[in-house]
Amino acid sequence: MSSRRHDIGDLVLRARQGQARAVGRLISLVEDGAPELREVAAALARYTGRAQVVGITGAPGVGKSTSVSVLVTALRAAGKKVGVLAVDPSSPFSGGALLGDRVRMQDHATDGGVFIRSMATRGHLGGIAWATPQALRVLDAAGCDVVLVETVGVGQSEVEVVALADTTVVLLAPGMGDGIQVAKAGILEVADVFVVNKADREGSDQTVRDLKYMISLGRRGTAGPSWRPPIVRTVATTAEGVEHLVGAIEEHRGWMLGHGELDARRQRRAQAEVEAIAMAQLRGRLGDALQGSASSGLAKRVMAGELDAYRAADELVAELGA
Amino acid sequence: MSSRRHDIGDLVLRARQGQARAVGRLISLVEDGAPELREVAAALARYTGRAQVVGITGAPGVGKSTSVSVLVTALRAAGKKVGVLAVDPSSPFSGGALLGDRVRMQDHATDGGVFIRSMATRGHLGGIAWATPQALRVLDAAGCDVVLVETVGVGQSEVEVVALADTTVVLLAPGMGDGIQVAKAGILEVADVFVVNKADREGSDQTVRDLKYMISLGRRGTAGPSWRPPIVRTVATTAEGVEHLVGAIEEHRGWMLGHGELDARRQRRAQAEVEAIAMAQLRGRLGDALQGSASSGLAKRVMAGELDAYRAADELVAELGA
Repeated sequence: MSSRRHDIGDLVLRARQGQARAVGRLISLVEDGAPELREVAAALARYTGRAQVVGITGAPGVGKSTSVSVLVTALRAAGKKVGVLAVDPSSPFSGGALLGDRVRMQDHATDGGVFIRSMATRGHLGGIAWATPQALRVLDAAGCDVVLVETVGVGQSEVEVVALADTTVVLLAPGMGDGIQVAKAGILEVADVFVVNKADREGSDQTVRDLKYMISLGRRGTAGPSWRPPIVRTVATTAEGVEHLVGAIEEHRGWMLGHGELDARRQRRAQAEVEAIAMAQLRGRLGDALQGSASSGLAKRVMAGELDAYRAADELVAELGA
Repeated sequence: MSSRRHDIGDLVLRARQGQARAVGRLISLVEDGAPELREVAAALARYTGRAQVVGITGAPGVGKSTSVSVLVTALRAAGKKVGVLAVDPSSPFSGGALLGDRVRMQDHATDGGVFIRSMATRGHLGGIAWATPQALRVLDAAGCDVVLVETVGVGQSEVEVVALADTTVVLLAPGMGDGIQVAKAGILEVADVFVVNKADREGSDQTVRDLKYMISLGRRGTAGPSWRPPIVRTVATTAEGVEHLVGAIEEHRGWMLGHGELDARRQRRAQAEVEAIAMAQLRGRLGDALQGSASSGLAKRVMAGELDAYRAADELVAELGA
């Protein structure tokens, strides 16, 4: 135990020095839900809270990976140390992430100022809400000025990624039924910056118009001064417009600092993280209770219609002493 | 209280008589997470367990809605009473489901032997795992022989729908990167029946071949006799092949009955339901604890790096007395 603690301490020290291998090893511990995680979390706690967390989301095919890649290049040119977490929560069963389009990120593979990591959160009971904040802390402690969290999945996972970010960037592309893209993901309310990528393609003006209209609808009845998400046009394949995206992200950060919103968001993020860990603990105990002899009959009784699911849940919760 | 109990009893009675309005009202109570839910669950418990639950899933654009619609027609022609639950978990923020393609289901709107319901599970802390089993119970008690659960979302939600079904049907279509469709959703391991829809289109033979290959890979090392998922070709828009799909679903049901698998699945479903309700209860208490004065500082302390998230979670769980 004490030697393991020594190892973790050493690993955290080396990660803080920016050693890629140590950073990777710590994120692997997070991904694996390793027993050492408590030690890792304890060792990292006081070295975190500095990195700016930017969430990047959007439907498949809008150019998320390419956009992230050119954003990394732009941030590196500005002297920033950058972390990238590509979160793929879509595959809870199969082993191995399908990240063919990650190949583009290999441009940055030899740059010591960039950490890139794909995370498959499928193994975790607490899912993305559980594993991602802890991987963020690793990159934060490793000295990243900015961490880009890209979600490869769609739907609920987008929203959970958004909940983690200081600034949320939502990508659209022309000709993909944009109104639906935005409205269906329920992302309008949470986008801080919109990007219309592939802006050189036909229909991009229409996409921008549609988006403006949807934003105006969504903001009806909003009281007081608030952030109005800008729309940035980019062509990620040629890096066109990426400087405007960097500017929009900076502007949003400035607005948040000026309005006390950054601390509010980070407190919500910490709250979500604590809650997810506590839920995972309770879920583990529930699972044990359901496996246990005293309650093994609960599911059978519900199936047989002898007991309704609420009363069974009451019995289960009571068994935990909660 | 006693008058409300009387109302619920009356509502359940009328739902059991197959009155659409009562069925709809009960599902609304489920969707709204109404306080009467405990009474509803208690009143329904002994009238459920009869319906065959068929999950229908697949990527957007493969023709899920059309397939469900022709499946309903075929099942009605066979004299079965049918329920349809279209679950859309993709939009946790916006109000109102976007179910434009639901329009096709209006063919069945005037048929008293069909209950169709869209469910937006976004409001629920327990999500799809919490609300859907209870809506299923309503349709079951209303005398449905078959309930089709269609997931409109993708990713994790597919998997959760699958966990609820007796038989899981996975739809593919040619020219949509089929290997990726299957592997990415991690759905190969859980599909009981595959459908290649739009089988009149170019590339459908290739899709079937790819699928066979993936199935053969996935089954390597499987010990003992087990179900080999058949591949059914359909053209949902013309109802071509739908009778083969009905046959495949029946065959799977027969196989499950013969191998004791139906009861095993239903027990797992009941277990998941009980666990989801218990988790929602605990989550509610956790939320209260996080709001509470004693622990209001937890998230702030985590944010400030004074406390790591695990220790904060310990404190939170301890507050519940768990």
